Amino acid sequence: MKRIKLTVAYDGTNYSGWQIQSNACTIEAVLDKAIEQVTGEKVHVIGASRTDAGVHAMGNVAVFDTASSIPGERWAYAINRYMPEDVTVMESREVSSEFHPRHCNTEKTYEYTILNTEFSVPQLRNFSWHVQGDLNLYAMRQAAGYLVGEHDFKSFCCVKTQAESTVRTVYSIEVEIKNGIGSETQSTEASAAEAYEAAYPASARCKLVKIRITGNGFLYNMVRIIAGTLVQVGKGRISPEKISEMLEICDRTAAGQTAPPQGLMLLNINYVDNDDKIFSIC
Amino acid sequence: MKRIKLTVAYDGTNYSGWQIQSNACTIEAVLDKAIEQVTGEKVHVIGASRTDAGVHAMGNVAVFDTASSIPGERWAYAINRYMPEDVTVMESREVSSEFHPRHCNTEKTYEYTILNTEFSVPQLRNFSWHVQGDLNLYAMRQAAGYLVGEHDFKSFCCVKTQAESTVRTVYSIEVEIKNGIGSETQSTEASAAEAYEAAYPASARCKLVKIRITGNGFLYNMVRIIAGTLVQVGKGRISPEKISEMLEICDRTAAGQTAPPQGLMLLNINYVDNDDKIFSIC
Repeated sequence: MKRIKLTVAYDGTNYSGWQIQSNACTIEAVLDKAIEQVTGEKVHVIGASRTDAGVHAMGNVAVFDTASSIPGERWAYAINRYMPEDVTVMESREVSSEFHPRHCNTEKTYEYTILNTEFSVPQLRNFSWHVQGDLNLYAMRQAAGYLVGEHDFKSFCCVKTQAESTVRTVYSIEVEIKNGIGSETQSTEASAAEAYEAAYPASARCKLVKIRITGNGFLYNMVRIIAGTLVQVGKGRISPEKISEMLEICDRTAAGQTAPPQGLMLLNINYVDNDDKIFSIC
Repeated sequence: MKRIKLTVAYDGTNYSGWQIQSNACTIEAVLDKAIEQVTGEKVHVIGASRTDAGVHAMGNVAVFDTASSIPGERWAYAINRYMPEDVTVMESREVSSEFHPRHCNTEKTYEYTILNTEFSVPQLRNFSWHVQGDLNLYAMRQAAGYLVGEHDFKSFCCVKTQAESTVRTVYSIEVEIKNGIGSETQSTEASAAEAYEAAYPASARCKLVKIRITGNGFLYNMVRIIAGTLVQVGKGRISPEKISEMLEICDRTAAGQTAPPQGLMLLNINYVDNDDKIFSIC
């Protein structure tokens, strides 16, 4: 038997999340079915991150075992023949039989996208959270700073979590403003900003705030609660300094709102294991 | 009566294009219906660009006349209450009764997006043309250079055109490589490109080639034929110098393929008319 690792991208809009459920369409079920169509084997893929309904991924990871002789790197081609257009295997490779996507030492990166415009932009409706009104990015960055490091994130975790420990390490949180469809990069310098205003009418602009967060693991809804809390900071409803206190309280009601799922994207999972070179960037 | 100008954004995926048709869902029909829901008036909006089925817009323009007392800038809010989530009025304003979106002196900008990856990225499937294999951007830029200026674009126009003249002026064509979801900006410097390769596994990257074209007007399918031809140049199937010859021949069969609609986005229309300040950027 060989163990195959898949890197999976999906538009989660039409799925009830990753995890298999009866009477619901899930990413896991789509993968299991496609693998069976390839080899006839009944398999159950093991996923790294059980993303919620409506959440997207560029690089979720799944493994499965197979008796097939198909080479590891060809599995992406084989599976994609049976995939719906909203799920794609971006990469496949054979890994050690000991490799488990949730037990390895990992570094996960998520991106949360906020569409900060007066009116929603149709093309981004399934891939962003539409938030009207000014957002203070400096306050959001300051607040994010308090979350970086090893903390007990119990306040930033859905009460339904089954995690044994709520301690996690956040390596970095970047809060960046990006211009979306039909926009040039907006400078932070005042003079350039004025020139930009003159050159581009509001209708041609589309301001995105991206929260990119990397850590060794994330609790249930943790990124969405962080994003929701940072937006409340950006709106001046929560002071950045309040974040320390929220962490200390260790109670979900201390933190801010849970941001909606469609703004969330699992970007990448890096596996770091010095004992096995396959895992170095697998 | 007042004339109201709307700037309209849409995800064209589920529409049979702009222009009203019996038994088909169109952007124009959706706007007409919403305006009727606001005031009870039966109107027919006049659009600036009759985009094809599957083509998107950030800034298409439409006008209509109304007896309503709703102020010009409030119309966006009024109409959006009745809009489906894939069409949004981004801006509205009152204009002179002489303003016509197709007869004014205009500068239109379109963007064509090519997803240049081995496998299609689900999140971009409706907003890009998936093209596998290497694309020579230098050749594409060289080819684009031949198209800039005033030319007879008959070779780059669908034979079904009803245009009286096929002469148009292209002000600029930019061919840029951009990294998509989950990617950092890729430097053109070799050393930086190597560092990038090392830092980001292929699965976390997503390479987009954007063709941005500005001109005083575009013929039927002109941007899509230009994009299709430039991709053939990028693949080495057509030499950049061949473009001059294609223009001279004035026959559709001389140019390359028509790129598919979902990669096309109408970004912006600027109206320039020195006789009326309302038109300066209206």
